[in-house]
Amino acid sequence: MFTQRLPPPRPGSIFGLVAPRGETGTGNGRGMMPRDDGRTALGVDVGGTKTEIVLAARGGRVIAETRIPTDPEHGAHDTLRRAAEAARAAFGADAHAASAVGVSVAGQVGPRGVLLGAPNLPGWPGADIRRIAASAFGVPARVVNDVRAATWGEWRLGAGRGVRDLVVLFLGTGVGGGAVLCGNLLEGADGIGGEFGHLTVVVGGRRCTCGNTGCLEAYCGGWAIAERAREAALEGTEGAELLRLAGSADDITGKTVAAALHAGDPLARRIMDETAEVLGAGIVGLVNGLNPRRVIMGGGVIDGFPELLDRAAAIVRQRALPAARSVEFARAGLADDAPALGAADLALARLRQRV
Amino acid sequence: MFTQRLPPPRPGSIFGLVAPRGETGTGNGRGMMPRDDGRTALGVDVGGTKTEIVLAARGGRVIAETRIPTDPEHGAHDTLRRAAEAARAAFGADAHAASAVGVSVAGQVGPRGVLLGAPNLPGWPGADIRRIAASAFGVPARVVNDVRAATWGEWRLGAGRGVRDLVVLFLGTGVGGGAVLCGNLLEGADGIGGEFGHLTVVVGGRRCTCGNTGCLEAYCGGWAIAERAREAALEGTEGAELLRLAGSADDITGKTVAAALHAGDPLARRIMDETAEVLGAGIVGLVNGLNPRRVIMGGGVIDGFPELLDRAAAIVRQRALPAARSVEFARAGLADDAPALGAADLALARLRQRV
Repeated sequence: MFTQRLPPPRPGSIFGLVAPRGETGTGNGRGMMPRDDGRTALGVDVGGTKTEIVLAARGGRVIAETRIPTDPEHGAHDTLRRAAEAARAAFGADAHAASAVGVSVAGQVGPRGVLLGAPNLPGWPGADIRRIAASAFGVPARVVNDVRAATWGEWRLGAGRGVRDLVVLFLGTGVGGGAVLCGNLLEGADGIGGEFGHLTVVVGGRRCTCGNTGCLEAYCGGWAIAERAREAALEGTEGAELLRLAGSADDITGKTVAAALHAGDPLARRIMDETAEVLGAGIVGLVNGLNPRRVIMGGGVIDGFPELLDRAAAIVRQRALPAARSVEFARAGLADDAPALGAADLALARLRQRV
Repeated sequence: MFTQRLPPPRPGSIFGLVAPRGETGTGNGRGMMPRDDGRTALGVDVGGTKTEIVLAARGGRVIAETRIPTDPEHGAHDTLRRAAEAARAAFGADAHAASAVGVSVAGQVGPRGVLLGAPNLPGWPGADIRRIAASAFGVPARVVNDVRAATWGEWRLGAGRGVRDLVVLFLGTGVGGGAVLCGNLLEGADGIGGEFGHLTVVVGGRRCTCGNTGCLEAYCGGWAIAERAREAALEGTEGAELLRLAGSADDITGKTVAAALHAGDPLARRIMDETAEVLGAGIVGLVNGLNPRRVIMGGGVIDGFPELLDRAAAIVRQRALPAARSVEFARAGLADDAPALGAADLALARLRQRV
């Protein structure tokens, strides 16, 4: 019984208004008066090493933020209890007044807020994050995958504002994605809608970490760029600058490829050109299939190779179906607090639907 | 002024209740009493050679149907005027009572019901189909691409019933698609959402009719299957049965490939195996990206090669992201009246939203 691990309600604490268990567990606010009538929400982004907490106003302004280290091995109850304490300590009465809490997690979130898989949070899958968060914060909770939360954040408050149909691609070590279609967040039947990194772009192509072959991520993820550069450096005569920068082929990373590219290394240039070609072709398919008004790109690979955005856009303008070519491209506009901010806003949106 | 081409209102005719032009043109029913309070609608599927007209009850039962030849060169006004006359002649007072009309067109439909492109209806692009249909039938009109209409029809009334997230693929000469996500029809910013035939599945691969390379359709469309078989028959020593059935390599079609497959021709088998591989890989990407609960497949290629459905499903169960693998597969359940039926139901849905 996780509720036994919570401290007893204290006057003035954010635990003071914990609803009866049945109500809290459903997380839909029935039987609870919203504290400040939906004007603010807390957003919690649980990562493998740190947990970001923001206090956000309706409409998206960040009023205040704080963070705590995540100790995944202590479990979800402990982490969310500490997050609630940190919110109270940092935001004071405002934390108490917030109407809802949105929790963003790097993992697969089931339709009812149960965590189904999370590589960076071992032992957490199976945890009913919605119930735990609702209990820890004493307000209705909504739980969403971190990339989906960041997508929503970009749509409402970042580079995606003003359009109805949006596709977002985050190119980091892996390639994550999300979409807002006709104003609705793409969630999917099992909560993994938006995994555009695992679109097949080369039938029978390179092996991906997901076990399949030919995925977009197997060419454009940070790990894949480094792997392709290592293979090429071992095979060919190019790449002297790349090898000098990295020390050895084994030590080549996305960052050393980016540095070698800027130093004029021909192998890094070739890897970059191939990456642009595959990324552009993948986005052409996404644009044809989903017909968004705007595509947003962000993440470490875009930070390291900013030209990828313009290169992919140029390919789309040449090769997408003519009706879809007017799609706009933009770089992600929110900083690291996009998932927490998006989760807070999604929690407020749920509250408005139901209360 | 197209309204001058309409016959004058006659008592008892379905033109008798034509609303003032401004009202009709917006097609949203403001200022008009629904005739039978949203209980029935007409559905019109305008094809390049014939136009199907159905009278559909709310919930999707087809009460009656009729058809007329399409003479595209006579234009949209003439075709929809004749469709309205045919509805009146075939359905009598029921046509008069219908509350709305849904028009499905093989082409790109803009957000306001203007036809933007239609290869089989030369001269029609630019026509305000919504206004023309509303005027011809005297009721609010909704216009939708035929594949999107058929997708909606399958979701509401066919093999897609009972799920919230659905992807549909129609493999005919070309490859069309559609999706219902979270209960909403995917339309896209420019009305072409669902063009899954133009997902890139082989970067730098075979040339597609759309001008791009490596599209799903360039491998799995009927024209592409025939083209690949022709090339292989000219190159290799296999394909004796295929050549005997077709007469010559130039006369190979999707149908002769299917016939040769059933006669045990090894070249037809190889073409079929490759088609299944590419189709499966493409659907793995779609399932990863959109996470539907069900995928429906239909069209002439599936009719000719029914094993494609099971082969693609097996590939998805092996290679999709584990969380998405439980997706179901089904064959399209509605006959040729899927677009007209879907359009009628979409028109009723719009009416319910707005009236």
